[in-house]
Amino acid sequence: MSAFNPVTEKDLAFFRQLMPGRVFAGEEISSDYDHDEMTEYGHFLPEAVLQAETAEEICQVLKYCNDHLIPVTPRGAGTGLCGGCVAIHGGVVLSTERMKRVLEVDTSNMTATVEPGVLLMEFPKTLEGTGLFYPPDPGEKTATMGGNAMTNAGGMRAVRYGVTRDYVLGMQVALADGTLMELGGKTVKTSSGYSLIDLMIGSEGTLGFLTRLTVKLVPEPKVNLSLLMPFDDLDACIGAVPKVLACGCDPTAVEFMEREVISCAETYLGRQFPDTSADAYLLVRLDGSSLEALQPAIDTLTDLALAIGARDVLLADTDERKESIWNARGAFLEAIKGSTSTMDECDVVVPRDAIPAFVHRMVEIGREAEVRIRSFGHAGDGNLHIYVCRDALPEAEWKRKVAQVMEKLYETARQLSGEVSGEHGIGHAKKAFLRESVGERQMELMQGIKKAFDPKGILNPGKVV
Amino acid sequence: MSAFNPVTEKDLAFFRQLMPGRVFAGEEISSDYDHDEMTEYGHFLPEAVLQAETAEEICQVLKYCNDHLIPVTPRGAGTGLCGGCVAIHGGVVLSTERMKRVLEVDTSNMTATVEPGVLLMEFPKTLEGTGLFYPPDPGEKTATMGGNAMTNAGGMRAVRYGVTRDYVLGMQVALADGTLMELGGKTVKTSSGYSLIDLMIGSEGTLGFLTRLTVKLVPEPKVNLSLLMPFDDLDACIGAVPKVLACGCDPTAVEFMEREVISCAETYLGRQFPDTSADAYLLVRLDGSSLEALQPAIDTLTDLALAIGARDVLLADTDERKESIWNARGAFLEAIKGSTSTMDECDVVVPRDAIPAFVHRMVEIGREAEVRIRSFGHAGDGNLHIYVCRDALPEAEWKRKVAQVMEKLYETARQLSGEVSGEHGIGHAKKAFLRESVGERQMELMQGIKKAFDPKGILNPGKVV
Repeated sequence: MSAFNPVTEKDLAFFRQLMPGRVFAGEEISSDYDHDEMTEYGHFLPEAVLQAETAEEICQVLKYCNDHLIPVTPRGAGTGLCGGCVAIHGGVVLSTERMKRVLEVDTSNMTATVEPGVLLMEFPKTLEGTGLFYPPDPGEKTATMGGNAMTNAGGMRAVRYGVTRDYVLGMQVALADGTLMELGGKTVKTSSGYSLIDLMIGSEGTLGFLTRLTVKLVPEPKVNLSLLMPFDDLDACIGAVPKVLACGCDPTAVEFMEREVISCAETYLGRQFPDTSADAYLLVRLDGSSLEALQPAIDTLTDLALAIGARDVLLADTDERKESIWNARGAFLEAIKGSTSTMDECDVVVPRDAIPAFVHRMVEIGREAEVRIRSFGHAGDGNLHIYVCRDALPEAEWKRKVAQVMEKLYETARQLSGEVSGEHGIGHAKKAFLRESVGERQMELMQGIKKAFDPKGILNPGKVV
Repeated sequence: MSAFNPVTEKDLAFFRQLMPGRVFAGEEISSDYDHDEMTEYGHFLPEAVLQAETAEEICQVLKYCNDHLIPVTPRGAGTGLCGGCVAIHGGVVLSTERMKRVLEVDTSNMTATVEPGVLLMEFPKTLEGTGLFYPPDPGEKTATMGGNAMTNAGGMRAVRYGVTRDYVLGMQVALADGTLMELGGKTVKTSSGYSLIDLMIGSEGTLGFLTRLTVKLVPEPKVNLSLLMPFDDLDACIGAVPKVLACGCDPTAVEFMEREVISCAETYLGRQFPDTSADAYLLVRLDGSSLEALQPAIDTLTDLALAIGARDVLLADTDERKESIWNARGAFLEAIKGSTSTMDECDVVVPRDAIPAFVHRMVEIGREAEVRIRSFGHAGDGNLHIYVCRDALPEAEWKRKVAQVMEKLYETARQLSGEVSGEHGIGHAKKAFLRESVGERQMELMQGIKKAFDPKGILNPGKVV
């Protein structure tokens, strides 16, 4: 990878002729492009930013860069948390931010086909009136659907509906040499050779450049409501999770939240959370065909929660109440970010019944290291987002402490048969932890796969493998 | 692959010392091992059959064979339909038929961990009383769970619950050189590097040898019932499928069946089907928490069916009635097989709304070629099983006709954006059709992946890629 060539005036001339007005170099490049949501992982300004509008342009850029050994870093909205879309080896950032068209909503096959730059927050508008919806629901609504596919994003509704992988039916991808390839399509099952599409999902643009995406839609649930359960402390709250999952109520989401994190969100949003009585909360969402149909589940969950130590069970069945809770939940990341100078993040996933043990150990790790740790996450599928806050720590002490804490958190996850990332990906920031987790041999296999797809290594170099 | 070595007495001595009493060579080998369910694709007797009992033995056999360039063909119950478990290059058949232990049912994480040779028909017994069930439901109940994972088997309940891939959480696999590797685990989501587990699923033992499987379980629906809808002809029956899927009733299964196929099953089983009035039937299964909860769906489907031409709607809500219908459905493959001298099969999958067009063309193709074609299948997910029957055709004419018919069926699937196999896999019998369908470039990528996992090509050579 040291053999990459710099981007020359000649290269820029080629790009400018291909994509007039959409090529930026040197001082023209906004500093937005030198990082993602985690500035902690460094700033890397690319040599050029190209804003693609068509798959054809993407193919031509890739072919050119492959021939000239110029690294290409794919980028959507830049909302990642592991540096996946950051050009750490320089070269070109190839952005999909202009590719925002929903190409088709096929109600009869219950699919939608979109360009990779469609934002998660804009997509639902195009489904209005069809009775269909797209379940993946990451907190970051300004993310692109392409970015979600390439990191296998999860989100709140994964407990019931699964993750992005479960909804990707077809992809058009450009290979490193510019060949355009169709993977999958609108068929809902297949056993036709190795699943290249499943390999592409979650590959963070290191195997191919996503140029078009076909996703599965499902009938929209007619009603939803949420139950907010305040608990005396985090231990009691987290301990309730396995019981909530086992009670047969098929929850859509099971999230946990702590008072301190909620307070950050209240400050950030300038709005009150509907309850201030407790240190820890469990938030359970139910989807169904009618309020009546959900009543048995509401009753079961209420009885269960009160029996295992919840102080109360608040029913959120009005739009206003639901919004006040879920808006707070959606603002957690930004709110924690706003509460500290800088922070580091980890996104481990453990078997669901290991969540209490993990959270317990996490609190100890923070106490031992004397750093502020904030966490929230998808208790229902064992996926926790943990933020280590620098606050006022001096640089050297912060570096030392954060390295120590991260190492211990990942070690705890490994001991509990967990994995490095539940839904945020690996990027460049988590590579060492991935290697520790899966071992040399699996890394070699992944490198062998990378070589088969991208022999010169120009696609998003320095990421994942 | 011409460089493989024959199995010598010295090799057999090694195997016998490793697995005493479970090594068979020459005349000791039952002719069962020379084919799968499709004898049409030829008989290939392996040089040795080894019945493994542990992952450790599998690793040692693989290491030995990799060192000595002896091909290894993994085999479960031998119920495949594409020759995937047949030793077309000779060497060793390594069978999992003795590895039938359910190692763990983890009710708190809702997972089960099994050895690869556990039969699909035996697994439900171990779940009794847990309130959990394993949704994948291929017609062939004597298949192994390992074989199901390695072909990404589908089955009747895929409309609602998805296919085997959706239920595989963890795998232990032995690589070609004998290294044992853990993929996934009990976590329900991950974004931790390339999804090697998804690559392994459906790879038909060409990338690794499955030694242990962890699957996801879900809460068992409390009741189920089926609606049988007789139609005047196949066109009307198949034309109803998209409407049934779009009416919001969330069916578990939507199967179509023709009178002729039902008659074969009646003869085969010696039992009457509950209705004989029509040429074609749609069979819709619903799962739910109670009969009352299902009533709105029953009403909607009944009204819909009658409005679009069903002669009647028969409710199967007693065990006896359900069995008489589903047992017939389960016997279709064997029944068609019993009605002809030999046959060839195809397992195409098309987008759901393309099923009517496909079936229409299929009938024409059979008529033009003057061969008997029988079909049934998973109308609800676009996956059709089509059997071309030889009956009394002379060898040369049969060969010519079947080649022609298969070519036309796959061509039709391609035109309708379908894929070569919905759930049976590729094996050696469908390789040429896979290549035609996905093109040279995808085949090259698959071969590159194969090389990264199995550089000497000893694992199930001649299959898939």
